[in-house]
Amino acid sequence: MTAYDDLMAYQRQTEALGQVAGRLGWDQETMMPEGAAEQRAEEMAAMEAVLHARRTDGRIGDWLGQIDDKSLGEVEAANIRLIRRDYERNLRVPGDLAEALAGLASRAQRTWAQARASEDVGAYLPVLEEMVRLKREQASALADGGDLYDALLDDFEPKTSGAEVARIFDAMRPRLVALRDKVMGSAQPAPLDGEFDEQKQMRLARKLSKLFGYDMRHGRLDKAVHPFSSGSGLDVRITTRTAPRDPFNCLYSTIHETGHAAYEQNIAPEHLLTPLGQGVSLGVHESQSRIYENQLGRSRAFTGYLFGQMKDAFGDFGVADEETFFRIVNRLDKGHIRTEADEVQYNLHVMLRFDLERDVIAGKLEVTDLEEAWNARFEKDFGYAVDKPSNGLLQDVHWSVGLWGYFPTYSLGNVYAGCLFEALKLARPQLEDELAAGDLSGATGWLREAVQMHGGLMKPRDLIARASGQAPSEGPLLAYLDEKFG
Amino acid sequence: MTAYDDLMAYQRQTEALGQVAGRLGWDQETMMPEGAAEQRAEEMAAMEAVLHARRTDGRIGDWLGQIDDKSLGEVEAANIRLIRRDYERNLRVPGDLAEALAGLASRAQRTWAQARASEDVGAYLPVLEEMVRLKREQASALADGGDLYDALLDDFEPKTSGAEVARIFDAMRPRLVALRDKVMGSAQPAPLDGEFDEQKQMRLARKLSKLFGYDMRHGRLDKAVHPFSSGSGLDVRITTRTAPRDPFNCLYSTIHETGHAAYEQNIAPEHLLTPLGQGVSLGVHESQSRIYENQLGRSRAFTGYLFGQMKDAFGDFGVADEETFFRIVNRLDKGHIRTEADEVQYNLHVMLRFDLERDVIAGKLEVTDLEEAWNARFEKDFGYAVDKPSNGLLQDVHWSVGLWGYFPTYSLGNVYAGCLFEALKLARPQLEDELAAGDLSGATGWLREAVQMHGGLMKPRDLIARASGQAPSEGPLLAYLDEKFG
Repeated sequence: MTAYDDLMAYQRQTEALGQVAGRLGWDQETMMPEGAAEQRAEEMAAMEAVLHARRTDGRIGDWLGQIDDKSLGEVEAANIRLIRRDYERNLRVPGDLAEALAGLASRAQRTWAQARASEDVGAYLPVLEEMVRLKREQASALADGGDLYDALLDDFEPKTSGAEVARIFDAMRPRLVALRDKVMGSAQPAPLDGEFDEQKQMRLARKLSKLFGYDMRHGRLDKAVHPFSSGSGLDVRITTRTAPRDPFNCLYSTIHETGHAAYEQNIAPEHLLTPLGQGVSLGVHESQSRIYENQLGRSRAFTGYLFGQMKDAFGDFGVADEETFFRIVNRLDKGHIRTEADEVQYNLHVMLRFDLERDVIAGKLEVTDLEEAWNARFEKDFGYAVDKPSNGLLQDVHWSVGLWGYFPTYSLGNVYAGCLFEALKLARPQLEDELAAGDLSGATGWLREAVQMHGGLMKPRDLIARASGQAPSEGPLLAYLDEKFG
Repeated sequence: MTAYDDLMAYQRQTEALGQVAGRLGWDQETMMPEGAAEQRAEEMAAMEAVLHARRTDGRIGDWLGQIDDKSLGEVEAANIRLIRRDYERNLRVPGDLAEALAGLASRAQRTWAQARASEDVGAYLPVLEEMVRLKREQASALADGGDLYDALLDDFEPKTSGAEVARIFDAMRPRLVALRDKVMGSAQPAPLDGEFDEQKQMRLARKLSKLFGYDMRHGRLDKAVHPFSSGSGLDVRITTRTAPRDPFNCLYSTIHETGHAAYEQNIAPEHLLTPLGQGVSLGVHESQSRIYENQLGRSRAFTGYLFGQMKDAFGDFGVADEETFFRIVNRLDKGHIRTEADEVQYNLHVMLRFDLERDVIAGKLEVTDLEEAWNARFEKDFGYAVDKPSNGLLQDVHWSVGLWGYFPTYSLGNVYAGCLFEALKLARPQLEDELAAGDLSGATGWLREAVQMHGGLMKPRDLIARASGQAPSEGPLLAYLDEKFG
């Protein structure tokens, strides 16, 4: 056994334990009995302690020191690059802080859910303050004198800075606002009306996820409060939700999570349980979920197919034809909820969170002032007020579970999806015909080859640049939105 | 922090990780996608490696050495007793033997399942021989010059010997055979006939589990191929199964597993995630599941209530009255399968396995002669032949996964249940009226106080003796069976 082999055998066990911890998270959102939360927090903390100990084990440093990077092939070099990067980051965070964060995340999530249900921001703020305190502590440890927010962002989107994100967002904001005002100023179709049986929604969701390439032999679809995808390799599970009057929520959440899950499922088997065996960054992950959901799933061609599927499932549901259906799927509306926002306004929601969380981490905004800041900013950006906390500060789970620096990756994903879709259309002139026939295999096959199969082999921006043939920028996304909505 | 505090904090994390591993097992039997098995095996092995390393960590020995046992209160002393016992047992088994046993168990279980499906004993014997070789090696390491079988039995039922079990079984056998022959010699009612909707079975099962005190806020009921209970403390899950023509399978499996789960759920909260926070032995665990299932669930009084519940759920299902229903629930029949046996014959199945496995471990019976010995003994005890290996040597999973010394705990559980039921009847003269009204709270409350809440505080026999007011013996069980069936 060489040092590389020893390190990889060790790493493989750590990856396996990471999958276990992830599955525990899935269980918590789907299956866990309500009264088990307190014990689960201890179980999660114990897993995190084991993982933290393994990830900071001095033997990793010894092995890394014995490996001659120049002797490595491409895959080996990428594995070592990721292991070294994580090792150095993990060494910086003290074990008791990592444990405290894991324990608090589980507790705070429960508090958040209760607070959201009872519209009680006051009940939430104490755990949120504690979370911010721990996250700033973690950021200080990671930043090593650098920018605190960048240190957190780097965990989700390596090699991107808050300043770079701000530059992209600043370029996008006026264009999106102008487009939003233009569309909202003209006639919009009426939204769907009526009740849609929830079991039928789930049946259609299951069919759509398979159509988009989700492999049920290595996954499963359940309901959860907040849709998500969980796991890597041979066990990648997704969740969705249903609302009787809003079947699009269920169906497009499912397609979105299918994008995440297909990415994980399509990584080359040789990378299973290695550092390359997971999506390379949240931004790239989101590029897959968003291109599945929007550029493909909400296209004129595919909505034509979906219109037929919905008539088969629900009978006549009061929509006259494909064209009207397409316009309903893509209608812009006033609304407070990020996850329900249309393609044009979605990024405006993200920008609001990005600016606020960057200020909080920088110490420029207190948690106690966060709701007021949120509400003021929302009214400024959207032109109407937040009517209740569950439509404002309490709407997202992220901050409660410690995901600070995470939000901008949603919009980076949209930017990447714009780049990839431009390249996909060039590569497959027959794309529209395929989508109109409900045949996603060409599009998802191209994404599998161009992006998904590589796992963590390339750096995020390099991967997108190579796949799309251009350096990532907001241009293609804005052009796509202008063409579709303008 | 004293050495005791340090040790208990360490132990608490190990207990939490043990719960995680258990929950992974639950997931595997209920939720896991079919194609995930290979990855799951690596995940489980990684968890086991973590747990084994923690359980043999030299720091445990250091802490134990620093603790003055005489300074400890009752709870502290019991914790230290259990930790010391496990630590010493774990240290005696060489790491490579423990690893070889774990690896073989997983391989042998697959071989057993295939052999059972194809009725091929020959394909099974090589792994079984290997397993016996390793188990005798493990027993030698554990026995430290003492009896090999006792060393294995001690893992499941501490402080009980093969000789003591043999004495009890020898006293029971002729009484059970005589009772069986008497009942089988007289007229038996016809079994249930017809189809019973499986969703309705599950609804009734859910109702029954709550009736017997299962707390759904800290548990859940799902379907699995083999019913089981899993987990301790605040998250104790049970499974059952359904067969359209045999609702008793679903309902009584549920009540049985509820007995196991209620035991775990009712342990005093102060013992959560400590060595005392789990049922104290397999025999005592089985005493709870069996008393719930049989002495309570199959009583004349409770079956009267259940008859009404079944009529409510399924309408008229062809049984005339409560008395006939009671006799159907408790009918004796010929059969080869232990898990399907009635209360009278069940222990005869266990005794057969006990005598055979004791001889094998003692080196008096070769694995190659095991099938012949099984078949001869079965015909002697039951009066008819084993017709195929899946009804004989291949029917149980236990020996393939290394559970040697486990079988007798099933019958010890029945013996303990007999003692407890005698005491319960004395303590609650109104018991029959309560059961007839479907009110289990008096009986399960008594068991909670007398047995369950104490967790691992007392030694198994001491616990049963204290709860039942007499040294455990087979007498009360035999008297109960004679009265009910004779």
